[in-house]
Amino acid sequence: MTASPFDHPFLSGLLGDDEIAPYFSAEADIRAMLSFEAALAKAEAAHGLIPAEAARRITDTCAAFSPDVSSLRSATARDGVVVPDLIKQLRASVGEEAAKSLHLGATSQDAIDTSLMIRLKAVVFLLAGRLSTIAAGLDALDGQFGRNQLMGHTRMQAAIPITVSDRLRAWREPLTTYRDRLTEQGFPVQFGGAAGTLDKLGSQAAAIRASLAQELGLTDAPQWQSGRLPIADIAGLFASISGSLGKMGQDIALLAQASDEIEISGGGTSSAMAHKQNPVSAEVLVSLARFNATLLSGVHQSLVHEQERSGAAWTLEWLLLPQMTMATAASLRLAKELTGNIKRLGTT
Amino acid sequence: MTASPFDHPFLSGLLGDDEIAPYFSAEADIRAMLSFEAALAKAEAAHGLIPAEAARRITDTCAAFSPDVSSLRSATARDGVVVPDLIKQLRASVGEEAAKSLHLGATSQDAIDTSLMIRLKAVVFLLAGRLSTIAAGLDALDGQFGRNQLMGHTRMQAAIPITVSDRLRAWREPLTTYRDRLTEQGFPVQFGGAAGTLDKLGSQAAAIRASLAQELGLTDAPQWQSGRLPIADIAGLFASISGSLGKMGQDIALLAQASDEIEISGGGTSSAMAHKQNPVSAEVLVSLARFNATLLSGVHQSLVHEQERSGAAWTLEWLLLPQMTMATAASLRLAKELTGNIKRLGTT
Amino acid sequence: MTASPFDHPFLSGLLGDDEIAPYFSAEADIRAMLSFEAALAKAEAAHGLIPAEAARRITDTCAAFSPDVSSLRSATARDGVVVPDLIKQLRASVGEEAAKSLHLGATSQDAIDTSLMIRLKAVVFLLAGRLSTIAAGLDALDGQFGRNQLMGHTRMQAAIPITVSDRLRAWREPLTTYRDRLTEQGFPVQFGGAAGTLDKLGSQAAAIRASLAQELGLTDAPQWQSGRLPIADIAGLFASISGSLGKMGQDIALLAQASDEIEISGGGTSSAMAHKQNPVSAEVLVSLARFNATLLSGVHQSLVHEQERSGAAWTLEWLLLPQMTMATAASLRLAKELTGNIKRLGTT
Amino acid sequence: MTASPFDHPFLSGLLGDDEIAPYFSAEADIRAMLSFEAALAKAEAAHGLIPAEAARRITDTCAAFSPDVSSLRSATARDGVVVPDLIKQLRASVGEEAAKSLHLGATSQDAIDTSLMIRLKAVVFLLAGRLSTIAAGLDALDGQFGRNQLMGHTRMQAAIPITVSDRLRAWREPLTTYRDRLTEQGFPVQFGGAAGTLDKLGSQAAAIRASLAQELGLTDAPQWQSGRLPIADIAGLFASISGSLGKMGQDIALLAQASDEIEISGGGTSSAMAHKQNPVSAEVLVSLARFNATLLSGVHQSLVHEQERSGAAWTLEWLLLPQMTMATAASLRLAKELTGNIKRLGTT
Repeated sequence: MTASPFDHPFLSGLLGDDEIAPYFSAEADIRAMLSFEAALAKAEAAHGLIPAEAARRITDTCAAFSPDVSSLRSATARDGVVVPDLIKQLRASVGEEAAKSLHLGATSQDAIDTSLMIRLKAVVFLLAGRLSTIAAGLDALDGQFGRNQLMGHTRMQAAIPITVSDRLRAWREPLTTYRDRLTEQGFPVQFGGAAGTLDKLGSQAAAIRASLAQELGLTDAPQWQSGRLPIADIAGLFASISGSLGKMGQDIALLAQASDEIEISGGGTSSAMAHKQNPVSAEVLVSLARFNATLLSGVHQSLVHEQERSGAAWTLEWLLLPQMTMATAASLRLAKELTGNIKRLGTT
Repeated sequence: MTASPFDHPFLSGLLGDDEIAPYFSAEADIRAMLSFEAALAKAEAAHGLIPAEAARRITDTCAAFSPDVSSLRSATARDGVVVPDLIKQLRASVGEEAAKSLHLGATSQDAIDTSLMIRLKAVVFLLAGRLSTIAAGLDALDGQFGRNQLMGHTRMQAAIPITVSDRLRAWREPLTTYRDRLTEQGFPVQFGGAAGTLDKLGSQAAAIRASLAQELGLTDAPQWQSGRLPIADIAGLFASISGSLGKMGQDIALLAQASDEIEISGGGTSSAMAHKQNPVSAEVLVSLARFNATLLSGVHQSLVHEQERSGAAWTLEWLLLPQMTMATAASLRLAKELTGNIKRLGTT
Repeated sequence: MTASPFDHPFLSGLLGDDEIAPYFSAEADIRAMLSFEAALAKAEAAHGLIPAEAARRITDTCAAFSPDVSSLRSATARDGVVVPDLIKQLRASVGEEAAKSLHLGATSQDAIDTSLMIRLKAVVFLLAGRLSTIAAGLDALDGQFGRNQLMGHTRMQAAIPITVSDRLRAWREPLTTYRDRLTEQGFPVQFGGAAGTLDKLGSQAAAIRASLAQELGLTDAPQWQSGRLPIADIAGLFASISGSLGKMGQDIALLAQASDEIEISGGGTSSAMAHKQNPVSAEVLVSLARFNATLLSGVHQSLVHEQERSGAAWTLEWLLLPQMTMATAASLRLAKELTGNIKRLGTT
Repeated sequence: MTASPFDHPFLSGLLGDDEIAPYFSAEADIRAMLSFEAALAKAEAAHGLIPAEAARRITDTCAAFSPDVSSLRSATARDGVVVPDLIKQLRASVGEEAAKSLHLGATSQDAIDTSLMIRLKAVVFLLAGRLSTIAAGLDALDGQFGRNQLMGHTRMQAAIPITVSDRLRAWREPLTTYRDRLTEQGFPVQFGGAAGTLDKLGSQAAAIRASLAQELGLTDAPQWQSGRLPIADIAGLFASISGSLGKMGQDIALLAQASDEIEISGGGTSSAMAHKQNPVSAEVLVSLARFNATLLSGVHQSLVHEQERSGAAWTLEWLLLPQMTMATAASLRLAKELTGNIKRLGTT
């Protein structure tokens, strides 16, 4: 039952992404939150805040824990976040002694935001790889057809002849920038406690946060519970990527309509017109670009994040960022396919 | 595996809607598209365009048909729409003779848009009922607490005292308007054929479309394949509903923060602070309002629907409207709960 | 000095509208607020709330009053609204006796929102007229070229031949709907006083409001100080109009690029390529459609209007609605010109 | 006559910015385009493409030229861009001989985009200074009140006590990041000629572009006529800045409403309630944040910039970016004022 095409039984063929979707499964989220709790216990034990034995119990339990998801669901309905019930279930499992050491000094937002960062980091690595593949595909087209002629168009009118290389450069140029940005993107741990002050950790707060970040492979940074720039940054980068790919899609759809300047394989069939070869993926690149451009606005609305933690602004992010990631992933997948399907560009 | 909280194993407890979600399942969509094909065959047989026997075969098959969804998925990846493969599967099932009569004169968009309208019509009926329930709940609060005093606030400052009735009126007033609009909302059949001209139906085109609409309980109207005002209208109505409920949510969250003027049961618990009672549903009403406000922009972008059918603009709608419907449903569900959880309003 | 192209010394040639812009001048706004104050005095005198003599003084003064705009500007910087200083200036002008009767029971929002409604009503009347002119222009094209052939395009690909009439119908169809909606659009008076309860007017509140509305030619309705559906409704209608005209613009730009199926006069010249005839107005229809689609989202964000009056949400409207009106006006102006510039459509 | 509050006779007191507005005047734009033409002539003369004498004539003329703005206006209406008519006027002024050397190899977009970059560079320098001032103001508050206590709030509920320092850190933290980003922001020259290939400049194209960039104090970069990432980047940065300041505004408005934890001077007066002190600038920070968040979506829509130059996408930018800059400027101005008006924070 899926209102979202990204997860839909048949629409996901077009709009989903089998490689990236698993990172937004409930299971992956839970797994990453359990990593957070385990790493936190380790860090707190290393700094003498909790007993080593408790940390061992917690890490062992987290490694194998399978929560009662139906209980998580009804608790989330009440609490607005999944963590209180997940911790409750975990506490029952680690035993009374270690229970006191679990989630010590942390709050729901620490677990949830950190889980997101863990998963985004992995996703972004994969997306950067796709950018390289597309760039290589465009380079190959350049090698084959670069010197062919293409009619340059400005304001939807034939302007002057350009080369295929010229057009390919416009498509390719931003991809390198994006790959660099994805690669350099920091993924900060979230750790602030109840109201962002790590009030229960005393003078060791910073050291524990640093250990926690290191354990998880994230960037150490002061809590950003109410300062959501990291979210806006990644959303902006995603929307830029799908936006530039949308430009490429639009160009290809226009080429496919207007002229004999392109040959594409793999077009879609029609239920009414057997003769058609629709440039489906080129069109969908435009849809995904406009989708991300639309949702980016909501992410920026959520920068108005009141006080120490805004349920309203934070929940809004959940409704937007995972889908923007999926749209970016689908966009890269389709751009890769489309590049591979171009059999000829320009005229000799 | 769900990037969307509306369909998510645990987030759907907070943001989903068990009653409305099934209407956006792949199964419900397929079922409604089969209804379209069956009704079309009936209408075309009634007007002598196809043999009565073929229509019988088609309606019988559609009533029981279960497509190969995995085939639908890969075909959608290629075609950009599910219909060509669905029709292909159906044709294999109805037999060679009736196959020629199936989907006659129709196109993918006819089946897909009509399926959406069939389901939206049912959904909107349920949502209208919820509006009535919320209005009744507010009336009950008015009866109990209406004469209590409340501090009126303008520009985030105490202004002059008002009554609880005054505030409740601001919450209740738009609900009646929305219920009326939902009730009066037309749900037009989509039937235009390959390029909107019903080119294969000759002089009987209008009559067949009228019969088709009647059979499906939809409004008869000329095709709107590239004129997407019906989509923009319903999206605007949904965003207005969740927007007004977001105002109510924001008001209640502010009441819960600032004063002794409200008592609510059922608040959320915190993983870090045992004493808290978070007004979770009030906050989420704000999130859902901002979510729909954001997505509405994309729906209006898709009004720029080029030529006879735009794959780019149409696909963009699929990414937006089902989720806007779900957000509206969740918003009404939460508003209903929240209204029921108010134990006291104002001071005597 | 103008960041907005609508008011810009040279960009307004392209994007402005000489007929509609004056309604959004400071002068027109002040004039309409003075009408509100005069009508209010009349209504309050008619119901015996203030002396007839005071009402006469007030109406006479309002008819001729020219405020000190530089004082208004610095006061608006402080108060967030222009009304307190405008009333202060008016009070000094009407004399001590009538001063007490001026603005009695009203608040800033009453004057400002009512001024907007007075002006929107006049604007909408003009816009409805433009819709009729465009529709008539399309009818004329239909008469001349309707039976010509056009290649129908779906998914950016040649599909099957249609007639020019078929395409014109898609452009024309929504215009009638919009004209009807503009004509039927209600423009409610705003009158609620300090916190929406007309607390200073006692049992005559409703009667005075009715008289006020009648005097101003507006619809009588309970105050909507925090219920901004009237704003969202008109914004949605504006965005729909420019959206449908954007579809027409996109279609024409595509015709102008792809084929010999259109002949347009009046295209733009290029600084670099003397041979070009750019379909400038067709393109700008797309820009204005996307602009309004974008801004509509902000108007819906402002439905989350907290408590009795939200400075944040209300100010946001001021940043959006006047510009959406201007964009709609420019869009209608350009569509009218463009329709007139089409010299041929389709092929025989 | 101004639909935009940024340029409005009295609303600009609240929403405008006297220091930044001049950069978006027609005059400043023309001045910067003339600088472009002069610098281009110099660069082309330096590389032997045009006679030195012609370059001298052109630079002398550009330094003093005052175009006929009314002619620019009507030409912009026709051409969609101001440049063809501006060049025509300039050509008449430089004399027949130099006329051939004017604007050689350039196109409208080169002049217009470069003018924008010249002005944005200056504006951004000023905005960075404001960020420093606000940060210093917050530091001063920290020195005075940092150890005071404040009730931490999560999910709109009192959570645990924090210090004023903790809250100030949340407001201050992003400002340093923004100042760094503004400072490091590149402002690339635009120079591509008719279709982005500098077709008229031959082998010296890159060298001339480098000289041009250096002359104008801009970054040398390949043309970005259809690759609008520089625009999206600056828009995203502006929206982030106003978003974070909106969070500060929202926090202050909530403090002003709820508690005795803040004392602010300079609040606004009310036309209906003499006792009120409205936190006007705090509210308007929220409005401006939501405004920029809204418009950012449109800027990203314009990344779908078809072919070598899209009139539709480019014109859309003109409707959005100058206003986003003004909103950011106003936001910084108000935040600076507001910070200065805080007389006390927290309790001892």
